[in-house]
Amino acid sequence: MSTADRPNIRAARGTELTCKGWVQEAALRMLMNNLDREVAEAPEDLVVYGGTGKAARSWPDYHRIVASLRSLESDETLLIQSGRAVGIFKTHADAPRVLLANSLLVPKWATWQEHERLAALGLTMFGQMTAGSWIYIGTQGILQGTYETFVACGRQRFGGDLAGKLIVTGGLGGMGGAQPLAATMAGAACLCVEVDPDRIARRLEHKYLMRSTSSLDEALAWLDEARASKQALSVGLEGNCAEVLPELVRRGRIPDIVTDQTSAHDPLGGYVPGGMSLAAARSLRTEDPDEYVRRSIAAMGTHVRAMRDMQDKGAVAFDYGNNIRAYAVEAGVEDAFEIKGFIPEYIRPLFCEGKGPFRWAALSGKPEDIYKTDKAILDLFPEDEALRRWIELAGEQVAWQGLPARICWLGYGERHRAGLKFNEMVRSGELEAPIVIGRDHLDCGSVASPNRETEAMKDSSDAVADWPILNALINTAAGASWVSVHHGGGVGMGYSIHAGMVVVADGSEDAARRLERVLHSDPGMGIVRHVDAGYEEALEFAKRYGVKIPGVT
Amino acid sequence: MSTADRPNIRAARGTELTCKGWVQEAALRMLMNNLDREVAEAPEDLVVYGGTGKAARSWPDYHRIVASLRSLESDETLLIQSGRAVGIFKTHADAPRVLLANSLLVPKWATWQEHERLAALGLTMFGQMTAGSWIYIGTQGILQGTYETFVACGRQRFGGDLAGKLIVTGGLGGMGGAQPLAATMAGAACLCVEVDPDRIARRLEHKYLMRSTSSLDEALAWLDEARASKQALSVGLEGNCAEVLPELVRRGRIPDIVTDQTSAHDPLGGYVPGGMSLAAARSLRTEDPDEYVRRSIAAMGTHVRAMRDMQDKGAVAFDYGNNIRAYAVEAGVEDAFEIKGFIPEYIRPLFCEGKGPFRWAALSGKPEDIYKTDKAILDLFPEDEALRRWIELAGEQVAWQGLPARICWLGYGERHRAGLKFNEMVRSGELEAPIVIGRDHLDCGSVASPNRETEAMKDSSDAVADWPILNALINTAAGASWVSVHHGGGVGMGYSIHAGMVVVADGSEDAARRLERVLHSDPGMGIVRHVDAGYEEALEFAKRYGVKIPGVT
Ligand SMILES: NC(=O)c1ccc[n+]([C@@H]2O[C@H](COP(=O)([O-])OP(=O)(O)OC[C@H]3O[C@@H](n4cnc5c(N)ncnc54)[C@H](O)[C@@H]3O)[C@@H](O)[C@H]2O)c1
Ligand SMILES: NC(=O)c1ccc[n+]([C@@H]2O[C@H](COP(=O)([O-])OP(=O)(O)OC[C@H]3O[C@@H](n4cnc5c(N)ncnc54)[C@H](O)[C@@H]3O)[C@@H](O)[C@H]2O)c1
Repeated sequence: MSTADRPNIRAARGTELTCKGWVQEAALRMLMNNLDREVAEAPEDLVVYGGTGKAARSWPDYHRIVASLRSLESDETLLIQSGRAVGIFKTHADAPRVLLANSLLVPKWATWQEHERLAALGLTMFGQMTAGSWIYIGTQGILQGTYETFVACGRQRFGGDLAGKLIVTGGLGGMGGAQPLAATMAGAACLCVEVDPDRIARRLEHKYLMRSTSSLDEALAWLDEARASKQALSVGLEGNCAEVLPELVRRGRIPDIVTDQTSAHDPLGGYVPGGMSLAAARSLRTEDPDEYVRRSIAAMGTHVRAMRDMQDKGAVAFDYGNNIRAYAVEAGVEDAFEIKGFIPEYIRPLFCEGKGPFRWAALSGKPEDIYKTDKAILDLFPEDEALRRWIELAGEQVAWQGLPARICWLGYGERHRAGLKFNEMVRSGELEAPIVIGRDHLDCGSVASPNRETEAMKDSSDAVADWPILNALINTAAGASWVSVHHGGGVGMGYSIHAGMVVVADGSEDAARRLERVLHSDPGMGIVRHVDAGYEEALEFAKRYGVKIPGVT
Repeated sequence: MSTADRPNIRAARGTELTCKGWVQEAALRMLMNNLDREVAEAPEDLVVYGGTGKAARSWPDYHRIVASLRSLESDETLLIQSGRAVGIFKTHADAPRVLLANSLLVPKWATWQEHERLAALGLTMFGQMTAGSWIYIGTQGILQGTYETFVACGRQRFGGDLAGKLIVTGGLGGMGGAQPLAATMAGAACLCVEVDPDRIARRLEHKYLMRSTSSLDEALAWLDEARASKQALSVGLEGNCAEVLPELVRRGRIPDIVTDQTSAHDPLGGYVPGGMSLAAARSLRTEDPDEYVRRSIAAMGTHVRAMRDMQDKGAVAFDYGNNIRAYAVEAGVEDAFEIKGFIPEYIRPLFCEGKGPFRWAALSGKPEDIYKTDKAILDLFPEDEALRRWIELAGEQVAWQGLPARICWLGYGERHRAGLKFNEMVRSGELEAPIVIGRDHLDCGSVASPNRETEAMKDSSDAVADWPILNALINTAAGASWVSVHHGGGVGMGYSIHAGMVVVADGSEDAARRLERVLHSDPGMGIVRHVDAGYEEALEFAKRYGVKIPGVT
């Protein structure tokens, strides 16, 4: 499809309603915004992000959803089954206007194969996380999640300050490319090893990366200087992790933090083995795939061995969700799992406070509305240093995609304050139009995903999926604007069940009541889930904030 | 545990509240009623029915739920995670008071093994269908479901009348024992072949079976007489299906209907091979299990071969969900699947009209309240002959268990009329106390179960599990009193996802509004699901009754 043929979907801006109420209007605009050329990866295929994560099943389905939202009454609820509008029932004003279920399968049949069979017949679609729940807002999410991980690591291991600290990591791809900017936002010096010079060039161009070189000596010299003067710096080093990291160990150059986001989940199509040029690797890949995989796995062994050596010598090491530990074990690195996953290590303590990626978008389309909310957030939470740093830097460095939006991490006890404040600002006219509030599914109480969000739960309840369902039900009961339940987001079919929610601040008193309830119940589920799993921090938090847990608080 | 040690839980009766509102009170009484000695199979273990289907995870959990319900405000919602009260959040009057999720697992881990591991750690429980959703009311459900299946078969194949027709079936066990009474209620003559004389004796004792004999000649003589005079009659024949059915074929005695409920799902512990006495079979079972299974499967082949022969000679044959077809194929009966499952054959046309097992219980504890609702139902739907027959016979023949209750099949367009009528009767004082309305999970729009409720869907969407989730969400949005989502009920872990709902008629205007909404959305999901799957009947029904389906109606 040529660019000329690409659909040019763009959500309406401003205060004129095209639906029968602001909640419907918000759903319509967010659906359209998900498919905005500036936001979506492949809008011509309705693909928003993450491989095949879609916002609607087909073009006729998209148009039918749009028509349904336009005619939907404020006491009706539209049901969306994997991207198709399947029914409208009478409910009431305080009920969600839209309820969505995405790519759910009876467990015995919950495979990519059955999903593909059904998708080919037009019977389902893959909703990923925020694609199928109409609250994707571009790459800010990845950047912010990476930032939050580095900050949490800094808080736990380095007294809250990464200035003068060195992070070594690999991979500057779709996700990994956020690492250098997240690291510098967090104040650190960061060495990113990337085998593909084109990827390095792209990150430089988009200002996610500050400098690049193919000389390890030069890179280290720049980084040493930055560390000495406590300046933030990111350096892209053209090289292979399986060669560069062992060399750092040999030289005794142990970083403060080591992690990795090379495409290690895929030993054939993703990871590039060391000991050969990129070109040589590419031809081996097609000519002798078996040999390629053998070398790739061996290289991951070398790579992780070096990470383990750094760890033994004092570096903080964590796995960033690319499955490299499992392949390293295959390559003989028996202690690879001494490196822990990033969720149990750094994110879970935040989950215990109901913290996670909170986001909002301005239906006015005006960046000023977001800048005003940024300021409101800083006024509400003046004591949160990492938040201040993020909001300030994001205001400068994050480019708008589609409707202006912001992401930051807020917890239970904070979110409803932000939501109510935004609602007041809409009511008073300080903001031009309503604000849509949602979150990612990388979340404290709405996700069961044993290889990521619920890896290594204290009580071994990783696979219990009652929680995301309860989350969706309580948010529906509390009056969220739309609620979704998904299967397979993030980690693929069979591996996760998760729920999304969105609530609209349109300035009304009704909205205030709904915001107050939903922004308690939603993060509250994170507290409840972690108290149940035996996390002391969560229990203390629940007691302090009066979360009602029968028999406990 | 001796009988003396057995817990003696009994729901309060009458009009005095022990909770802060009737909805909470109803939830409390129904939880207790599920565990009433008269109702539950093993109340000492909190087991209600169906193997290990429980109403609460443990005794401390039970007591905590009771305490939570007693203190729950009418604008709060209690969350139950697999039988444990885990949290209470502020919602509003029109939201459910309780939301439950039972035994859900991330699909890749959705096995009995993982379930058992978690259950042993006290982290989950099996909720079956109505056990974990607090709306089990005893064996009336099995009887009524079997009755409805026979009646539906009669309607489709015999012009609505089974008088003078002969049904041949096997098995008088826990489920199958309902067959003779269901058949006579439907007006038929029924031959039940059962290998175990103790089972026959028990069915006679409970008046589910009218006569018994071990002589085929005698049985046939009785049945011929009954058919000639169009009298309903049930005869238990001590014998083995793998011997009796081929003999009937040899004699040219072809029944009108042939089905089976022997325990064919289990070739070792369940089905009894022919060609030997029951005693001999029992000792072979322990002495040479392999040989037992070989003979058992061979006998199922002979048994199904005879069913197929009857079918070829004009009998209506259907599979009653015991997996006997699959073993018959193993035994070489290649055309075993020419016999279709009972759901696609007889129940799905009902599902297309939103019909399924609807039930209600009288919180007064007074049988008179149920008799009055029985009469109200007959007044509301005077044209429905099978319904009239069932209600009249159930009034005479179904013994009360726990709170007086009734089951019957009603569809979309009927249920809300019944609900509103009951609510009026509560308001006017005609009924002494509120009525609790719910349903089974053998249902039209709330179950994904590819081996039963969604077997052989027209568009092959058997495994799509978005539907039960949407059902739970829309019922929550519409204001059901409690809503549950379950995994594994009926067919075991990995094989089903399903949702329950209950709504209370307490005589208030608020209740009337909720009943109106929920009793549309809940059966409406059945219409929507079957329209989406391409069933013409459902489409016509949707158009006639004005069910809103975007792009369709
Ligand atoms: N942290 C999370 O929450 C999370 C979520 C999803 C995925 N992931 C995982 O993170 C990884 C990165 O994702 P992505 O979208 O950026 O992938 P990507 O394929 O876009 O980028 C991977 C990059 O790694 C480079 N690379 C491969 N082998 C290398 C080597 N030996 N040395 C140096 N560079 C090498 C590639 O050239 C490529 O630029 C994936 O494995 C993904 O599954 C993590
Ligand atoms: N229709 C449904 O919705 C549904 C639901 C659940 C289960 N089932 C299936 O229905 C079957 C019956 O269930 P149940 O609870 O009554 O089982 P059960 O084990 O209580 O009873 C089975 C009976 O069959 C008898 N029997 C075994 N082999 C025989 C033979 N060759 N000839 C004559 N009698 C024989 C046994 O003596 C026993 O009394 C099971 O296979 C069950 O899985 C159906």
